[in-house]
Amino acid sequence: MMNTPQRGFPLSEFQSRHSRASQAMDQDGIDGLLVTSEEHIRYFTGFDTQFWVSPTRPWFVIVPRDNPLIAVIPEIGVNGMELTWVNDIRSWPSPTPKDDGVTLLVETIKEVVGKSGTIGAELGHEMVLRMPILDFHRVRDLLFPLKIRDSTSLLKKLRAIKTSTELEKIKYICKVASNTFQSFPEKINLGNTEREICKQFKLDMLLEGADSVPYVMGVSGQGGYDNIIMGPSDRVLLDGDILIIDTGGKFDGYFCDFDRNFSFGNPTDVVRSAYAAVYEATEIGIETAKPGIKVSDLWSVMTKILDAAGAINNHVGRMGHGLGMQLTEWPSNHPDDNTILVPGMVMTIEPGMEFLPGALMVHEENIVITEDGCELLSVRASPEIIVVD
Amino acid sequence: MMNTPQRGFPLSEFQSRHSRASQAMDQDGIDGLLVTSEEHIRYFTGFDTQFWVSPTRPWFVIVPRDNPLIAVIPEIGVNGMELTWVNDIRSWPSPTPKDDGVTLLVETIKEVVGKSGTIGAELGHEMVLRMPILDFHRVRDLLFPLKIRDSTSLLKKLRAIKTSTELEKIKYICKVASNTFQSFPEKINLGNTEREICKQFKLDMLLEGADSVPYVMGVSGQGGYDNIIMGPSDRVLLDGDILIIDTGGKFDGYFCDFDRNFSFGNPTDVVRSAYAAVYEATEIGIETAKPGIKVSDLWSVMTKILDAAGAINNHVGRMGHGLGMQLTEWPSNHPDDNTILVPGMVMTIEPGMEFLPGALMVHEENIVITEDGCELLSVRASPEIIVVD
Repeated sequence: MMNTPQRGFPLSEFQSRHSRASQAMDQDGIDGLLVTSEEHIRYFTGFDTQFWVSPTRPWFVIVPRDNPLIAVIPEIGVNGMELTWVNDIRSWPSPTPKDDGVTLLVETIKEVVGKSGTIGAELGHEMVLRMPILDFHRVRDLLFPLKIRDSTSLLKKLRAIKTSTELEKIKYICKVASNTFQSFPEKINLGNTEREICKQFKLDMLLEGADSVPYVMGVSGQGGYDNIIMGPSDRVLLDGDILIIDTGGKFDGYFCDFDRNFSFGNPTDVVRSAYAAVYEATEIGIETAKPGIKVSDLWSVMTKILDAAGAINNHVGRMGHGLGMQLTEWPSNHPDDNTILVPGMVMTIEPGMEFLPGALMVHEENIVITEDGCELLSVRASPEIIVVD
Repeated sequence: MMNTPQRGFPLSEFQSRHSRASQAMDQDGIDGLLVTSEEHIRYFTGFDTQFWVSPTRPWFVIVPRDNPLIAVIPEIGVNGMELTWVNDIRSWPSPTPKDDGVTLLVETIKEVVGKSGTIGAELGHEMVLRMPILDFHRVRDLLFPLKIRDSTSLLKKLRAIKTSTELEKIKYICKVASNTFQSFPEKINLGNTEREICKQFKLDMLLEGADSVPYVMGVSGQGGYDNIIMGPSDRVLLDGDILIIDTGGKFDGYFCDFDRNFSFGNPTDVVRSAYAAVYEATEIGIETAKPGIKVSDLWSVMTKILDAAGAINNHVGRMGHGLGMQLTEWPSNHPDDNTILVPGMVMTIEPGMEFLPGALMVHEENIVITEDGCELLSVRASPEIIVVD
């Protein structure tokens, strides 16, 4: 096992997040943010719990533009929130379905926003407002004439640029996954099931240093897999099968997200060619990624390679995305996304194609944009598909 | 490792879920359900993927009262949805933030509901509508004068009663956790950190037969822990510490949820008494749980024991809850919840108290309500706190 980076963040990191958010709020003309989701509450406060797995209780944090943060949370979480830099903690004995924090939240927002004003919230694309919608509508109505406005773009932009401390955690989990993949071919065999293989992978990731492995997808098929999100199943791996393992491991709240392809027995020429195409598209993607480039350009340069290699289709809908506190973050390497890369953005480069009807080949690496290009965070896949025999 | 139950469900289970939902829709006067969340899409279709970890794409399933199910999903999931019993699958090349399924969803709902009618959705307590709220508002506006109504109660009641096939999966994962706890004391020692202990527990659960272990909470403190949701940390376990491990493991999409308490070195008399009180409260809870009893009665009988033992407080806000596809499900063992127990409901019995300022003791078992009482699913905890030395 490698040396693990220090956990958590210095106080200055949270102060800086709040200060950057305040500047953005000032530009957007809003007086505060209301956040309800695991990632945004953790981003602003450092509050870190697995308890989000329970859907019962809502949690709220207000990030005022000009004043310290306020947590409005169930009693069960007060001791935990006291461990963070948030000093103003208000609570109620949740669960109380009739008024599960609504009144307390409305009072708090009014206090922050004043008699006229606007609060931003997680209302747009890739956001989940983690509270009952009926309660959200009650909050909105009780706040009237105060306004709730969408702050999706503000939140996405804030989180997209990673600090060195965040990057350290992502680098570490990428290294954990790289090491796991490195020694993995010798641990699997013809005759294993997808499920056995994914279980082994998960155990290895944990032993190698991951805190958790929320995503270990393994799908296989004779001559190619037909999707990249459904496995593992009890399908037995036989000669001629192609297996993809895609993984999202986590360390101290930050994800890696990349995959590797395995040929059980010698690959056919068609498979070799498809692998070579996605490998080359990844190379081009990595070469192209640098400050000033649009993410739609990444899509274009990769698509050109895959089209030349005879790609039929791309069901994935994009060729990579942001990465950090979530497995997939804004932006998307997609023809309609003109987000410009800047230093500190962590991205996946993920070309994929249907190379024969029903047979996909997808490749993925993780990078961080630097001052003059990008740095690979995953250990680059081998130029030839890994053979298991 | 034990023999694992068969995975998945027979077609008849999904037909029966649809038919029960249709009866409930008929009673509620609605023409169909729109579901967006992992658990409801899986409940009605059997669509089972880890891909929910990615927040980018919304997924929709329409459950018409009188007609077969319709999936309205991103292209990336079509091959997967084809593995289920759903034949009508409509897709779009998500992610496309400008119209991420909204138009297609609205057309589909109109087709199902007709020119006047109402569709039910996940809008209430313990529900998360897994789509951007701005998109939900667009759907609502485009559907007008068709109505969207809350169907939280319908969905909760439907899921609360488990079939024998569902129960088999819950029993299995409870057995996995029981076996893991059984052999666990010999694997941990004074000087371990909470984090090391929880990692070991997670590995053991996986080796014992869990598919995943989304929840392994470990918190400790000298003479008692002060919360039950924040760990593990790097705190080193020393003589006089009390540790709780609470776990939600999963098998084939179903959870267990129970905890065990460990004393590092010999417990004080105060700790022994607190443990005895929560143990006795659990006994009473299990004895009381049977068809016809209200869940508020479970709260009352347990509270009586804990009050007599000098309980200061209960930060948890309830003393148990439903259990199944989620770690915590409706109903809550809470004084305001008058839900009546019926056979097939799986519940946790979870008394907890603050026995000294800042020191909690929480106990938990899992049961299923039977025709004339209940059956324990977890192997009952020992009447004395487990001592690690």
